[in-house]
Amino acid sequence: MNEYQYRAGRILEKINQLASISEDENCITRTFGTEKFMEGADKVLEWMKAAGLNSRIDNIGNVRGKLLCNNPSAKTFVIASHIDTVVNAGKFDGPLGVIMGLDLIEHLRQSKITLPFHIELIAFSDEEGVRFHTTYLGSKVIAGSFEKDLLEKKDSAGITLEKAIVNIGGDINKLFDDAIEEKDWLGYFEIHIEQGPVLYEKNIPVAVVDSISAQRRVEIILKGVAGHAGTVPMSMRNDALTCAAEFILMVERLAVENDLVATVGRLNIAHPATNVIPGEVVFSLDLRSANEDILSSCYHTIKKNCDAICAGRNIGIEWKLVQETKSTSCDQSMKELLVRAIRGAGYEPLLLASGAGHDAVAISKVSPVAMLFVRCFKGISHNPGENVELDDIAQAIGVCNNFISQLINQNNS
Amino acid sequence: MNEYQYRAGRILEKINQLASISEDENCITRTFGTEKFMEGADKVLEWMKAAGLNSRIDNIGNVRGKLLCNNPSAKTFVIASHIDTVVNAGKFDGPLGVIMGLDLIEHLRQSKITLPFHIELIAFSDEEGVRFHTTYLGSKVIAGSFEKDLLEKKDSAGITLEKAIVNIGGDINKLFDDAIEEKDWLGYFEIHIEQGPVLYEKNIPVAVVDSISAQRRVEIILKGVAGHAGTVPMSMRNDALTCAAEFILMVERLAVENDLVATVGRLNIAHPATNVIPGEVVFSLDLRSANEDILSSCYHTIKKNCDAICAGRNIGIEWKLVQETKSTSCDQSMKELLVRAIRGAGYEPLLLASGAGHDAVAISKVSPVAMLFVRCFKGISHNPGENVELDDIAQAIGVCNNFISQLINQNNS
Repeated sequence: MNEYQYRAGRILEKINQLASISEDENCITRTFGTEKFMEGADKVLEWMKAAGLNSRIDNIGNVRGKLLCNNPSAKTFVIASHIDTVVNAGKFDGPLGVIMGLDLIEHLRQSKITLPFHIELIAFSDEEGVRFHTTYLGSKVIAGSFEKDLLEKKDSAGITLEKAIVNIGGDINKLFDDAIEEKDWLGYFEIHIEQGPVLYEKNIPVAVVDSISAQRRVEIILKGVAGHAGTVPMSMRNDALTCAAEFILMVERLAVENDLVATVGRLNIAHPATNVIPGEVVFSLDLRSANEDILSSCYHTIKKNCDAICAGRNIGIEWKLVQETKSTSCDQSMKELLVRAIRGAGYEPLLLASGAGHDAVAISKVSPVAMLFVRCFKGISHNPGENVELDDIAQAIGVCNNFISQLINQNNS
Repeated sequence: MNEYQYRAGRILEKINQLASISEDENCITRTFGTEKFMEGADKVLEWMKAAGLNSRIDNIGNVRGKLLCNNPSAKTFVIASHIDTVVNAGKFDGPLGVIMGLDLIEHLRQSKITLPFHIELIAFSDEEGVRFHTTYLGSKVIAGSFEKDLLEKKDSAGITLEKAIVNIGGDINKLFDDAIEEKDWLGYFEIHIEQGPVLYEKNIPVAVVDSISAQRRVEIILKGVAGHAGTVPMSMRNDALTCAAEFILMVERLAVENDLVATVGRLNIAHPATNVIPGEVVFSLDLRSANEDILSSCYHTIKKNCDAICAGRNIGIEWKLVQETKSTSCDQSMKELLVRAIRGAGYEPLLLASGAGHDAVAISKVSPVAMLFVRCFKGISHNPGENVELDDIAQAIGVCNNFISQLINQNNS
């Protein structure tokens, strides 16, 4: 066993310890601000302290540990990910990045290398947004972009976010003091599982995140005419479902031909019955692309094609754009360092767009951001089946060591 | 106003009276054996008696009225339809045939024509099958094919069919005495609304039913792999819904090209979410054709094509044939009389397959059967919007008069 494998083993041990802290004894669930969430946060705080970091839990529940350099006015390089989870989660989504960051900083400290910048490790308190249906609470506070309105949001028990913050010992008047000022950022680095199957299929342990995709969500209602399945001839039908089927295949074809992912994930027939021709169908459309121009152009093509399909079938249509998110570009210079680090480890330096959102999106408003994806088993995530191999963590440690070393050299020169 | 229009007006009056008797004061609902159902049956019995028919309610709740000819050993010609309804029904589905039959027989009696056969008018007590989820209870008793097992069926309140029959004054040991023996049948004639849009679209008041379609129902489960809508590239997806969409369009194309109607009326995605690629989809397929060979051949083509589509997309499949019904042919000789009668009335004699089931299906086991369809507004049925124009009823009276006259002449010669 080499040094990186040994360190990967210690990382896995901590990931398992954190996973054992859960709101539900049968699965892993730690949502923002709950007792079990805070127990997990305290555990991470204890590890940061043990690693010799200047540590605390801030007002929104982020766990933060600093390794300061000798120059008080130096900028700060943040390594971070989140420690909240979805319901019935896997153990790697979030914690992998936090605990790998802890390991990297601990070894930097032990190496007694002279740092040209401060390093801060942050375990964000809310990335998944399960409890208050709003994502990035923790990273928004750090970026100074936390909106006060959010404090009025209520969880399913009617508890406001303000009350939840007070319950964990936070002071809502000090949330803005917890931000890292824009002028103080050197950069942001997040290690995360891919949550997709590309690395697994290509048999590569890590990849550089090129950007985080832009996204549009649409709700579409198709209105035909319900009728008796036995008595209405095919030529006289206005079947909303066959119309939706034509739409779904058109979208699939367009996504395959362009740099886009498109998904119809929900579809409901109004008053469904085996012997009734569907009169109305409601469905969702989720479109994502790293390239905003492609996303926008495909969106308009899809809408135009949809109109044509519906006109051809004499089907009415309601089209509602319900969400639109811009893409986040990762920093060119840090991407180059990561590419070099991956090539140095002997792997093809793959650049992937992240179709899933990450805290890096919130931080990108104030700092250059970089992300490293680590392979997960078959791309399975948000599920107890989520898994990362020890060897892949070891490879990722090597790549991150190299990346940080380059970054230090760059800033020392 | 001519005589037929006057008679049509009287028929509409009775249809409205019957429609006013309902289990629900806001809509029309009369399901087998309820208090309101029996109130309706008593009303029909009263009308049959007033028309001079030898009338009674039999043990399954059918209302029956006989006009006897002078020859006691003559055969019986049955004119019938049903007086039970679906929930929130229209007023014509069933009652139109019963009350038009009453009008026809009443006028035959008044005309003092010498009949070569007995005529029996029957208002069947259960065609829709709402209460016990089994159709044709009334007509099965008449055909002598009532299965004793049915007596154990329970309604949603846990009341057995046996108890329901006793409650309406029926004797379950005499159900078989109510049958008309096979040797005594001359024929069966049912007038019914089309429940489809063909006559409405073609602007014709009536059509001859050529046959009642054969039917197959299938339940299909497609099993792909669920995944994150943002992180799984199009080329790595096993999307069960896009596979279902391809299937739906294939079936539609095949049905359009062949003499078949095909409907996917139910479709459910397992664990649906906007941002999750559908991993499993369950849907129904309803296939009907007057031609059993076409139905069978298309069924096998659809199954083969489905296998190919699933293989191409690496999607698993479960295919369950859940229902298979043979077609019912209407009697050639009676169809010819009806064609002649329609031509005589100045209309194109259209022969339609009935995609919906009717009591004629049950009676066809023991007797030649014939049916006349009457146009209904836009084909709307099983719905308060169901409507039939007075003029169409008047035209149908003319056609039926002519049909019965020919039948009498044929049997007198």
